[in-house]
Amino acid sequence: MKVAIIGMGLIGGSLALSLKKHRVASHVIGVENNPAHAKIAMQRGLADTMEPLVPAIEKAQIIFLAVPVDVALVLLPLIMPLVKEGQVVSDTGSTKSAICKLADTLPHRPQFVAAHPMWGTENSGPQSASEEAFTGRTLVIGEAEKSGKESRQIIENIYTRLGMPILYMHAADHDLHAAYISHVSHIAAYALANTVLEKERDDDTIFQLASAGFESTVRLAKSHADMWVPIFKQNKENVLDVLNEHISQLRKFKSCLEKENFILLHQLILQANKVRRILK
Amino acid sequence: MKVAIIGMGLIGGSLALSLKKHRVASHVIGVENNPAHAKIAMQRGLADTMEPLVPAIEKAQIIFLAVPVDVALVLLPLIMPLVKEGQVVSDTGSTKSAICKLADTLPHRPQFVAAHPMWGTENSGPQSASEEAFTGRTLVIGEAEKSGKESRQIIENIYTRLGMPILYMHAADHDLHAAYISHVSHIAAYALANTVLEKERDDDTIFQLASAGFESTVRLAKSHADMWVPIFKQNKENVLDVLNEHISQLRKFKSCLEKENFILLHQLILQANKVRRILK
Repeated sequence: MKVAIIGMGLIGGSLALSLKKHRVASHVIGVENNPAHAKIAMQRGLADTMEPLVPAIEKAQIIFLAVPVDVALVLLPLIMPLVKEGQVVSDTGSTKSAICKLADTLPHRPQFVAAHPMWGTENSGPQSASEEAFTGRTLVIGEAEKSGKESRQIIENIYTRLGMPILYMHAADHDLHAAYISHVSHIAAYALANTVLEKERDDDTIFQLASAGFESTVRLAKSHADMWVPIFKQNKENVLDVLNEHISQLRKFKSCLEKENFILLHQLILQANKVRRILK
Repeated sequence: MKVAIIGMGLIGGSLALSLKKHRVASHVIGVENNPAHAKIAMQRGLADTMEPLVPAIEKAQIIFLAVPVDVALVLLPLIMPLVKEGQVVSDTGSTKSAICKLADTLPHRPQFVAAHPMWGTENSGPQSASEEAFTGRTLVIGEAEKSGKESRQIIENIYTRLGMPILYMHAADHDLHAAYISHVSHIAAYALANTVLEKERDDDTIFQLASAGFESTVRLAKSHADMWVPIFKQNKENVLDVLNEHISQLRKFKSCLEKENFILLHQLILQANKVRRILK
């Protein structure tokens, strides 16, 4: 199977490696605007060939769109009119409402499958791509009923072969859940990093004192703005709702400390401990 | 060298394993109130013998206090009057001001060394103890000048043999830095866990969707209330200052979204990305 991957970053690169490892793709055509990324993609063998967008689309049976969610909204209208019978287009974006809404207005809607492999790290670029990235993670398919049965089955088969369980969701539900379990975690980490950087002018002390706990909590603060600003923009309403809730939860801790209500503080922590049941 | 460790939890247990692995202690006497922990400590070989507090203090050259910081304030006044010439007492607590202030009022002050090995995990109890826990982490010694030279050198030698660089700090400075790089990270994680648990009633969906990012950000929310409430209580003023700063940083993100100021949002993220330079 010949596959084109548009965007040879962390996700596109990891997808390329996974498709090859699990012998799903015989040939990966990479499409990448950034010459440094294109070079690494070839050096690491993520792509067999690099091509411009239009010839890549012509040659591939499956076209994966693995670009920031704002870029996806620009590229999808260029891609969909070009697809021929038997070809399938699928995205990997962290938001699903905007792209599904857009896809409904474009030609060959049944040949588009809106998808989100629930994986990422704080790193970016093809240098960070990993061949076991997706295994065991969930693939969300958004608005599955809008995709043709054949196209959907092709995408489902591919991700199933990569070891991913599949979950079907309305795009709006996906975006709400994603705000909770991913988008606001990123804002919390960014804000915590800024809290420390703002006041702790002495880098050396932070570096020496920072223990594993700090590292794990602010890890996501390394994540790339070019990927995350468009996600927050597209999912603004949900992110704001969850962020308000998060600030109000923080205020409860603040109020316990101010009022020296350590009984309630204890209870808030016991409540938070319940997160154990949903973490692996 | 015969060592007594009071508190066979995560820290005490890890200290026991490290002291044995690096051949610092020939015999570890464990002191533990919780019978289940005492049993695990013996089964895992963390302690060679378990003894009540007073005989343990009589027999050991070094007495490590590895209990929650509120319990440390209860035990230190029982221990210090009992210490004889040549014995050294050292604690492992996450706050240093309260215990240093207390130690100043107790007999044999020069034989007490206030210390904080900068390590921890979200897990607790002797079952989570690890023999390589401390290696490469920093040991903070608080108010070093109040300890006798000989006592301090004994403690420094022990931790150096465990592979820990040593940092000297005023207790007040330690507590301020700890609020930044540890205590508020825990509150942020607790509040984020409560945010998700409050609204996302559907555990199964969270479980399926939660990706590595969520896990790492809320990991600390599993941490035990009995350890953390006393830390927040003793370090209340610093924790409140940093928490206020954190809430105000979160409000900046909120305001950017509300006003659709994505330029400033981008800048806030670039600022947060600078945390890369202080993370390993």
